[in-house]
Amino acid sequence: MKARIHVTLKNGVLDPQGKAIENALKALGFDNVAGVRQGKFLEVDLAPGDAGAAKAQVDDMCQKLLANTVIEDYDIEIEG
Amino acid sequence: MKARIHVTLKNGVLDPQGKAIENALKALGFDNVAGVRQGKFLEVDLAPGDAGAAKAQVDDMCQKLLANTVIEDYDIEIEG
Repeated sequence: MKARIHVTLKNGVLDPQGKAIENALKALGFDNVAGVRQGKFLEVDLAPGDAGAAKAQVDDMCQKLLANTVIEDYDIEIEG
Repeated sequence: MKARIHVTLKNGVLDPQGKAIENALKALGFDNVAGVRQGKFLEVDLAPGDAGAAKAQVDDMCQKLLANTVIEDYDIEIEG
């Protein structure tokens, strides 16, 4: 069983890393880029079990360790 | 028009950051974690246009800047 987690900066939080990527893309000639936001993507392998319980557990992981909920949002998908 | 890009380490490439997260989760009591892989997630805003052309362009961005294709895979989704 696998959890796919996206951790992204909340809207309104400055993203200097995304801005740097945007500038680099423009310098390479990609002129139609209007903005870039960078986030994290995590794949967590879990022992087999109930999908609902797994989702609750991964939510707990995000709250405790994986995301800084002051400035970041997270999104969880459970597979298999 | 928005491109969602996942950049992940290829299978077989060591992921020390993922391993550190796995160890931290286990230290917090999440004993059923079997593995963690960390990747990057990018959202690129593009000027409106043809989805096929946008995908080709984002593929070019990944090859040139966003991914290190020696050790990383990437996956592109075009929205709206």
